[in-house]
Amino acid sequence: MEKQVSIIKYKNGKKEKKLDKVAEEVPLTIFLNGEELITLLCTPEYLEDLAVGFLVAEGILVPEVNLKVQVQHEKGLIWVEAEKVSKLGKASFGKRMVTTGCGKGTSLFQYHGRGKIAHNLMEISIEKLFSSLKEMHAVSNLYLSTGGVHSAALSDTEGNMLVFREDVGRHNAADKILGYCIRHELQLMDKIFLTSGRVSSEIVGKVAQMGVPVLVSRAAPTSMAIKLAEELGLTVVGFMRGGRANIYTHVDRIR
Amino acid sequence: MEKQVSIIKYKNGKKEKKLDKVAEEVPLTIFLNGEELITLLCTPEYLEDLAVGFLVAEGILVPEVNLKVQVQHEKGLIWVEAEKVSKLGKASFGKRMVTTGCGKGTSLFQYHGRGKIAHNLMEISIEKLFSSLKEMHAVSNLYLSTGGVHSAALSDTEGNMLVFREDVGRHNAADKILGYCIRHELQLMDKIFLTSGRVSSEIVGKVAQMGVPVLVSRAAPTSMAIKLAEELGLTVVGFMRGGRANIYTHVDRIR
Repeated sequence: MEKQVSIIKYKNGKKEKKLDKVAEEVPLTIFLNGEELITLLCTPEYLEDLAVGFLVAEGILVPEVNLKVQVQHEKGLIWVEAEKVSKLGKASFGKRMVTTGCGKGTSLFQYHGRGKIAHNLMEISIEKLFSSLKEMHAVSNLYLSTGGVHSAALSDTEGNMLVFREDVGRHNAADKILGYCIRHELQLMDKIFLTSGRVSSEIVGKVAQMGVPVLVSRAAPTSMAIKLAEELGLTVVGFMRGGRANIYTHVDRIR
Repeated sequence: MEKQVSIIKYKNGKKEKKLDKVAEEVPLTIFLNGEELITLLCTPEYLEDLAVGFLVAEGILVPEVNLKVQVQHEKGLIWVEAEKVSKLGKASFGKRMVTTGCGKGTSLFQYHGRGKIAHNLMEISIEKLFSSLKEMHAVSNLYLSTGGVHSAALSDTEGNMLVFREDVGRHNAADKILGYCIRHELQLMDKIFLTSGRVSSEIVGKVAQMGVPVLVSRAAPTSMAIKLAEELGLTVVGFMRGGRANIYTHVDRIR
């Protein structure tokens, strides 16, 4: 997932020719039932998970375990065959998930039928969140060698890391985790989603769409991310670093 | 551009209720000649520049100074009226700018007719790049108070900062600068584009589309960003911090 490139390194007023490592980024074009849908730019691993996770997160596909997925790595093409394509999801796709309302201004994201996340299904200690996030950063090898990717991970309430992904796109890393969970039938209603990136409304939307109740980041959330998380019943913890953390929404899940 | 929110602050094993500032994120729905095109999620300032910059960067509009733009801030709606809409650009929009080729795998971005950036039009000293990037970070007030945004700026070869923008999306910050330059007829062929974010192929594409010859970041580029910059004649400098920098492409513009 790395590529070696020849660079000019500048240091102490001197230029020097050197070899350096950068994160690999490739285009992946997704075909759904034979029709070209979109080209994503991503790190070239776990492409089947990425395609499935993306289609479900965008509301185009309903989660199915036995989707037919075929990938041609060298050409950057992937074919997904599915019966349960949402016409509404496909029609609104490309306009993102936000709809403009009438009179009352702008309504928030549409959630393809998923309701608010249930509140009494899990609890987690803040210490476990700290150790999970620390573990995620410790295993972020591609980040450590290139600095050019974001990490995402899924943990359980005991602090065990179940899935870990790195990608040049922080949304891709989330989609790869979602796709993995769908294809391996992993239950998500008592899990924790960890990310190295900032928490925008789109990431909140994806995690809520997955049904994961807790989202943790070392970075900052936006105003709309907080508003959306409040509405959807998602616990958001940000700025988790150096023994500190900010809990923005639904604090009752944090012991 | 900030919102105050009520949070639970965790520190030294204690939870405390506090007020905190987060970056504002709002949806902005763009209508082109009366037709709904897309909803962006952005920081709610310079929305006219954002819409114009986005449409040109995506290859849907040809740069025009006197575009009719009308914005309704409270509803998050913006109308752009233009005569020179590219049918090709609009058709490929939503599939991003990458096209899949036949036989030879995947071709790179399409550049809407703009050729390679001319090579002999400017030169800049690396000291000026260091001071410009330092200045950009120093004036990033929204970042300093919320941690939730990216910065972008445009400087000249003397190190003067001409335009500066912050946004929850790093692509939006770039589009706001592009839109400003189009609407104010600013020449770009001897300018420097600075960003706080990672350098993906999409950012390289946007900057090359603007015709700006030098792109500087304190963060990392990806493999495809470097390949694309090499092809398009763009100088990419990354990891510029602490007196060090990596020059990835077209070093001859750097003195």
